[in-house]
Amino acid sequence: MSYVKNAWYVAGWASEFSHELKRVTIMDEHIVMYRTSGGSVVALEDRCPHRLLPLSKGKLIGDNVQCGYHGMTFDCEGQCVRIPGQENVPSSAYVDSYPVQQKNDIVFIWMGDRDRANPDDIFDLPQFTDSAWHAHQGEALHLKANYLNVAENLVDPAHVSFVHPTTLGNAASEDVPVHVDTQGEVLVAWRWIRDAAPVGFFQKFGGFNGNVDRWHYYYLHLPCTAVIDFGSVDAGLKLAEDDRDRGVRIFALHFLTPVSETYTIDRWMHLRNTAVGDESASSQMDAMFKVAFNEDKEILEAIQEQEALPQKRRPIRIGIDKGPTVYRLRIRELVEQEATEDLGEPVKPTFVHHV
Amino acid sequence: MSYVKNAWYVAGWASEFSHELKRVTIMDEHIVMYRTSGGSVVALEDRCPHRLLPLSKGKLIGDNVQCGYHGMTFDCEGQCVRIPGQENVPSSAYVDSYPVQQKNDIVFIWMGDRDRANPDDIFDLPQFTDSAWHAHQGEALHLKANYLNVAENLVDPAHVSFVHPTTLGNAASEDVPVHVDTQGEVLVAWRWIRDAAPVGFFQKFGGFNGNVDRWHYYYLHLPCTAVIDFGSVDAGLKLAEDDRDRGVRIFALHFLTPVSETYTIDRWMHLRNTAVGDESASSQMDAMFKVAFNEDKEILEAIQEQEALPQKRRPIRIGIDKGPTVYRLRIRELVEQEATEDLGEPVKPTFVHHV
Amino acid sequence: MSYVKNAWYVAGWASEFSHELKRVTIMDEHIVMYRTSGGSVVALEDRCPHRLLPLSKGKLIGDNVQCGYHGMTFDCEGQCVRIPGQENVPSSAYVDSYPVQQKNDIVFIWMGDRDRANPDDIFDLPQFTDSAWHAHQGEALHLKANYLNVAENLVDPAHVSFVHPTTLGNAASEDVPVHVDTQGEVLVAWRWIRDAAPVGFFQKFGGFNGNVDRWHYYYLHLPCTAVIDFGSVDAGLKLAEDDRDRGVRIFALHFLTPVSETYTIDRWMHLRNTAVGDESASSQMDAMFKVAFNEDKEILEAIQEQEALPQKRRPIRIGIDKGPTVYRLRIRELVEQEATEDLGEPVKPTFVHHV
Repeated sequence: MSYVKNAWYVAGWASEFSHELKRVTIMDEHIVMYRTSGGSVVALEDRCPHRLLPLSKGKLIGDNVQCGYHGMTFDCEGQCVRIPGQENVPSSAYVDSYPVQQKNDIVFIWMGDRDRANPDDIFDLPQFTDSAWHAHQGEALHLKANYLNVAENLVDPAHVSFVHPTTLGNAASEDVPVHVDTQGEVLVAWRWIRDAAPVGFFQKFGGFNGNVDRWHYYYLHLPCTAVIDFGSVDAGLKLAEDDRDRGVRIFALHFLTPVSETYTIDRWMHLRNTAVGDESASSQMDAMFKVAFNEDKEILEAIQEQEALPQKRRPIRIGIDKGPTVYRLRIRELVEQEATEDLGEPVKPTFVHHV
Repeated sequence: MSYVKNAWYVAGWASEFSHELKRVTIMDEHIVMYRTSGGSVVALEDRCPHRLLPLSKGKLIGDNVQCGYHGMTFDCEGQCVRIPGQENVPSSAYVDSYPVQQKNDIVFIWMGDRDRANPDDIFDLPQFTDSAWHAHQGEALHLKANYLNVAENLVDPAHVSFVHPTTLGNAASEDVPVHVDTQGEVLVAWRWIRDAAPVGFFQKFGGFNGNVDRWHYYYLHLPCTAVIDFGSVDAGLKLAEDDRDRGVRIFALHFLTPVSETYTIDRWMHLRNTAVGDESASSQMDAMFKVAFNEDKEILEAIQEQEALPQKRRPIRIGIDKGPTVYRLRIRELVEQEATEDLGEPVKPTFVHHV
Repeated sequence: MSYVKNAWYVAGWASEFSHELKRVTIMDEHIVMYRTSGGSVVALEDRCPHRLLPLSKGKLIGDNVQCGYHGMTFDCEGQCVRIPGQENVPSSAYVDSYPVQQKNDIVFIWMGDRDRANPDDIFDLPQFTDSAWHAHQGEALHLKANYLNVAENLVDPAHVSFVHPTTLGNAASEDVPVHVDTQGEVLVAWRWIRDAAPVGFFQKFGGFNGNVDRWHYYYLHLPCTAVIDFGSVDAGLKLAEDDRDRGVRIFALHFLTPVSETYTIDRWMHLRNTAVGDESASSQMDAMFKVAFNEDKEILEAIQEQEALPQKRRPIRIGIDKGPTVYRLRIRELVEQEATEDLGEPVKPTFVHHV
């Protein structure tokens, strides 16, 4: 198993939940979710403890869920409150419930120990509430791939030269080295391609014709939320690395939800400091992102198929793999901690600061 | 394995068999069936002993079956009578044959020890030949579900309130307790809902407008044939329980054929003491039954999927589960007997009479 | 495993390969194949050693293959010649390559030890270059069946009476015995049906109306290339067995490619001493062969399904099985030799000459 349980995962955009039962599957767990009449989102184990019918096959009675087979009814905490045909309702009649939080129009769910669920740990960025920035929710990309392979792709600037030649990359970047660093539980891989022709994306959304300085910063918030800060600026400006807000700057966000060991949903959105309030630009960006993300999907699904076969030799790692390598090690460490720790202090992040 | 072998199972309606080869699968065994020119039904192992081609891929030569690969030919008892290219036909060249009986336009097959196959044990009801009753064969419902889950549903009056609210049940019955009893190898679960609004079925086929007394008797003949005796009568009559023929009374029969551990065919038909000879009423009942049975199918297939997953906790049993619980215990006992018994007296039914 | 590795297998007709990447799967190994600008065919392991993406998802850069994920590039021998983002390219960065030969417009690939690959061992017939004969490539029949079952069918004259009654066989041959012999690593099974009505094929391609002598010689070149020499001649001529060129004679060739243990491609073609240069006759023969080969496909796929089930009893062998029996024994011997031999002399063929 490659799952890190003690973390907030995205269960869906806020718009995906209403006062109707909806099955969601995360890390092989089937969950029934719905909004109460008050608007908060509930998440319960999607399995009646009686005959195992998924509760999502039943119906809402007020804010409670009634099983569709024999009418056992559960409240928002998962406790059974009615068993038709008998008076007593034992406390052992219950389903598990999951902590849920909505923030920035995104619904997050906690998959691990309830006691460790801290809403302060939910992913956030100041740009969500900065009027100089425009936030736009995209879509959900479904990949038949393990989430670690998808996440690895999101801390890997090198692949864009080969996988996304018409949108996010071009030949100018093929041999530019990648830097890697860590900031707490965030892994960063980045590179600048200085004084080169603009890629397709910034020809379209920046109107660049002459050479530009282009950057790609891949921030991977463990376990699997990615912020890809990329942009371009006139090469003549010789922009300092920390001064990126002066260029056309876009954050592509990817919230990965591991559905199973071989299936991942990547909900993506973008934040930008250009074309603020322009929904037509949002749609055009969506279209361009979808070209690129489907290129990733084809690669990642082909790799998943190959990984399922017997292997004659171990894979090799190469120079550009620093980000993915550090990522894999840290995930393995987190999984190991969850599998074994039962005493004492919470384990501190052990990321090596400079890789 | 959950199969009881020493029993008569339904292989099909009489109309399903003609002088053509037909593959039928029961309890994971592939069987080739056909009618002889004399009209009797033959059932042979559907596997040529030579190169394993299913005999159903071959053809009939008179009343014998010729394999479609090299022409080995088998008679109605499964003995090989010809091997092209050689004179001698060893007695070891054979396929298994199965006892078959046709009764009440239904073809039954015996899946266990030939010596125990007794035609007197085949399911029957006096109403099949009673001119005051009308018999009508319905269809074959295919369910991706283990037959025990399907059978359990057929000794469970409580689910109709929640699964079939527009046809067979309504809210009035939600909390009415269920009685359970055994009669030899027949399990009975029943309840009366007195002085309540008629359900959809009896609004249509009985013309009831005012309150009725409604009954549901679920007779489960082990291993898996069900008779559901249900009906309604004016509440004012205060009908005695044994006097049900005075009301509008319907028997819904279900003949379950376990195809595999995860696939069951439910051939259903009905017998009724109303609208005798009225085929239009039969069709309307079929339509209403199909609504209800597809509701069961959706529930049972969802449960099957859920049961295939790893389970965190054991399922719980509740008050209404008496019938299913006794049924499971008795099936387990029968399976265990077949797996172990090799000496002495036939084992007597050990059903506890009053549960 | 039933694979014989040290042998030339058909990867495709010559026309199937061009200067484009194409995935081919043989014996569970995924292989990327393409023609160089010089016209020779290259075959490499279809798996980048870095992140395991199939190289067939990449592109050709000149005659080299560039991986579609991070641009690692491999030459025609499989050696990595470029790793973007770094200077050094370690020799451990490589993919396996396979010996390939084109002969008679057919592309052969060697699946075993490179050192044993001898182009002189590639299948050939003098008729390929004999102007009195016409060669015509047919199609590729895909079968969900183990290649040994398919090959067995190709050393089995007896089945044509039952499987191909409208094209290659008829009732006259049902009880004619089969002869079997070996010639080095070639197994021969044959029979003559003397003075009988012509089968469908020779009614059409030979114009025979009266009785004919008909022959079927099945040459199975181990591991799995078959030449079926069949033909007809006026019965009045009393043709000697070795004088078959005086009749209408056709070779149906079958090149079996084991894709997996349960999937085989049968590329078939024909050579004939009649209708030389007549492409319309070729098309008509193709049509007739396709009828027959699809009859085989139905049989062989049904057997494959049956073999995958638990078996109550061992299959039996009958008189006509001499060819298949000798074939199975010899294949088992070859597989065993490959699994164990590591010293000394190459093992000599151990076929018993007269069976």
